[in-house]
Amino acid sequence: MTDRRLRGPVRIVGAGLLGASIGLALRERGVDVILSDISPATLTLAIDYGAGRAAAVGDAPELIVVCVPPDVVATTVALELDAYPDALVTDVASIKLAPLLQLRALGADLSRYIGSHPMAGRERGGAISARADLFIGRPWVIAGHDDITYRRAAAVEDLALDLGSVPLEMDAAEHDASVAMVSHVPQVLSSLLAARLHHASDATVGLAGQGLRDMTRIAASDPELWVQILAANAQPVGAVLEALRDDLDRVIRSLSDPAVPGARRALAESLADGNIGVARIPGKHGQAKHFSQIVIKVDDRPGELAKLLTEIGEVGVNMEDLRLEHSPRAQIGLAEISVLPEEEQRLVEELEARGWQIAGAFS
Amino acid sequence: MTDRRLRGPVRIVGAGLLGASIGLALRERGVDVILSDISPATLTLAIDYGAGRAAAVGDAPELIVVCVPPDVVATTVALELDAYPDALVTDVASIKLAPLLQLRALGADLSRYIGSHPMAGRERGGAISARADLFIGRPWVIAGHDDITYRRAAAVEDLALDLGSVPLEMDAAEHDASVAMVSHVPQVLSSLLAARLHHASDATVGLAGQGLRDMTRIAASDPELWVQILAANAQPVGAVLEALRDDLDRVIRSLSDPAVPGARRALAESLADGNIGVARIPGKHGQAKHFSQIVIKVDDRPGELAKLLTEIGEVGVNMEDLRLEHSPRAQIGLAEISVLPEEEQRLVEELEARGWQIAGAFS
Repeated sequence: MTDRRLRGPVRIVGAGLLGASIGLALRERGVDVILSDISPATLTLAIDYGAGRAAAVGDAPELIVVCVPPDVVATTVALELDAYPDALVTDVASIKLAPLLQLRALGADLSRYIGSHPMAGRERGGAISARADLFIGRPWVIAGHDDITYRRAAAVEDLALDLGSVPLEMDAAEHDASVAMVSHVPQVLSSLLAARLHHASDATVGLAGQGLRDMTRIAASDPELWVQILAANAQPVGAVLEALRDDLDRVIRSLSDPAVPGARRALAESLADGNIGVARIPGKHGQAKHFSQIVIKVDDRPGELAKLLTEIGEVGVNMEDLRLEHSPRAQIGLAEISVLPEEEQRLVEELEARGWQIAGAFS
Repeated sequence: MTDRRLRGPVRIVGAGLLGASIGLALRERGVDVILSDISPATLTLAIDYGAGRAAAVGDAPELIVVCVPPDVVATTVALELDAYPDALVTDVASIKLAPLLQLRALGADLSRYIGSHPMAGRERGGAISARADLFIGRPWVIAGHDDITYRRAAAVEDLALDLGSVPLEMDAAEHDASVAMVSHVPQVLSSLLAARLHHASDATVGLAGQGLRDMTRIAASDPELWVQILAANAQPVGAVLEALRDDLDRVIRSLSDPAVPGARRALAESLADGNIGVARIPGKHGQAKHFSQIVIKVDDRPGELAKLLTEIGEVGVNMEDLRLEHSPRAQIGLAEISVLPEEEQRLVEELEARGWQIAGAFS
C-alpha cells in the first residue's frame, strides 16, 4: 500500500472530513503531511488522528490541498500561492468556476493553481469522521484551464491516483453544470419535498413508504454548507431549476383538468421521459441498470440477514445490490436483492427450497 | 397460519399483482377464493399459481375485492354490487375519493361498499410476481364513509388483519391528500428530475452519486398506471405541486442574485425546513430516525457482505438498517449500517479489531 506517485510534502489547509481524510490516506503511503486549520481545536484533533503534523519553519510543500468551505476557497488559495511560491495549489470544493474567476480577479498566479473535486460526497462529520479510504473508486474531477501547463498540473492527478480515485478532466463550467444536474438540483428538490412534510399530519407521514424515504434522505444535509454551494453555483443550478419549474407547470396544468384532450398524454410523456432518464444513470461499476430484483422476507432477528446472504453465497449467485425495506409497525423487513436476470429463477427456487419466503421477483 | 377472521368465499376481481397476492394469502388460510379477470390468460395464470378458482354458478361471496386499474374501479364495483346483492364490496386502488363519488353518482348501494388501500406499493409485475406475504406489516387504509354501518364494514378490516396488515381508518379525502403528499408528489418529482437526464451528457451522468440514484429510483415506475393515479387524484396532487412550485420559485429568485440581502437566508430556511421535514418520517417500526450510521468498506466478492453481517451478529449489535453504496468503476462497495447511537463506538472498535475498514461513522 506504499506505492505512490507524490513525493511530498503535501500541505492541507482545512482539517475537516475531506482534509483529514486526504491526510490519513497520504500518511498511510508515507507522505509527509502538513496540516493547517484556522481552528486550533480542529487542527489538534486531526493531528491526534494521525492525519499529519503541524506546520514548521522551512516547510516546502510540493502540493497544497485547500479543503475549506466554498465561500473562502479563493482567498485561501490566493494566500497559499503567495506563501509558497514553488508549490502547486489545488482545492476540493464542489464548485469550480467561481473560485477560478475569483482567483483571476485577485491576480493570483494561475500557472500554479488547478481546482479539483473528489466526488466523495460525505460532507458530514468533520475530522472525527475522516477515513483514509473515503476516495477509493470515486471520480475525482480535475478542472483544467489554459493558464497551467500539463506538467505543472501532474501532482493533482497523482494525488487522485494515490488516493485510489479515478481522475476525470473536465472544464470548470462543464463541471459546475454537471454537478448542478446530478447533485445540487437533487439536493434542492429533496429539501423542498421534505420541507412540505414539516406541517403534515401524523396520519399523513405515517403512510410514508420507501419512495418518500429515498427521496428525502439527502434533505438531512447541512444547510450552512449547502447555502454556500448553491450560491456559488447559482447560475447553473438556477437554469436547471427553471427548466424543472416549466416541466412542473406543465404537470400542474394537466392536473388542473385531466379530462381536457391531451392532458393525460402530457402526463404520460413526462412519466415516460423519467423512465428514459433514470435508465441512463450508471449503477454499480458504471453499468446502466439491468438487474432483476428478488424481494425476500427477513425476520427482524439478529443474524437473519447474515444467514440469507450466506445462503445466497452458497447457492453461488453474485448479489449485485441489496436494499432493506422495513414495514412500519412490524417486526419484519424485506430484503431486495439485485441479481443478473439469468440468475433470478434459480435463486428464487434455491431460496424457496431453503425455506425463505419470496415476496416478489421483478425484471 | 390458518387463524383467520374471514369465513369466505372471497371473490377477487382483477388478478394482477394485488389481486393474485390477496388470493394466495387467503388460500393459505383456507379461504375459498373465486378469481375473475377480463383477460382469460391472466385469470388462468393466477389460478395456476394457486391464487383461487374460477367463478361457478351459485357462488355467494361474503366479500368482493376489486383489484382493477383506477380508471375502472367505480364501474367494476357497481357491477359487482348489482351482481352479488348480499356481498360487501371493497377495492384496493391508491385513490379513494373519486371511486366513492363516482359510485354515488351511479346510484350504487353504498351501504355495502367501503374502499380500502393496502400500502403495499409493488404495482410492478402482474400475477407472476404475486406473493402471499406482500401485505405483512403494511398499513391498510380503510376509507370509512357515512352510508355503511360499522358492522357491515367489518369484513374489510378482517381481510387486512388476515393478510397481516395494520388497518387504519381514514376518510377518503384525507387519504387522497395524504398519499398525494407521501406518494404521488414524490413520484412526479422523481419522474421530472429523471426526465432532465434524458438529454444530459455522458460526462454529466457519469458523476451521478447515491443521492441522485435514490431520488430517481421510482422514476422507473409504469407511466400508464401513474397517469390513472395522478388524474384520479388531480386536485390534491395539484395543490401540493403548486405549493412546491412556489417554494421552487423562491429558491430560483434567491439564486438569481445570491448577493442580494436576504437571498442566502431564504435558501438556508428552505434547507433547514427540509431538515425538520425529513426528521418527521417514521423509519423502521414507525420510530422517527435516530440511528448512527457506520460505513464499512466491503470488497465486491461473493460472501464478503454475509461475513460482515455474521460478524456484526457475533458482536451482538442489532443492525437497524443497511444500505449498500457502490463506487462507480471500482470493485468495492460501502455498506452503511444503522445502529443505536450507544452501540456505535463499540461496533466500530469491534469491526476494526476484526480487520474491517471503516469509511465513516455519523450520528
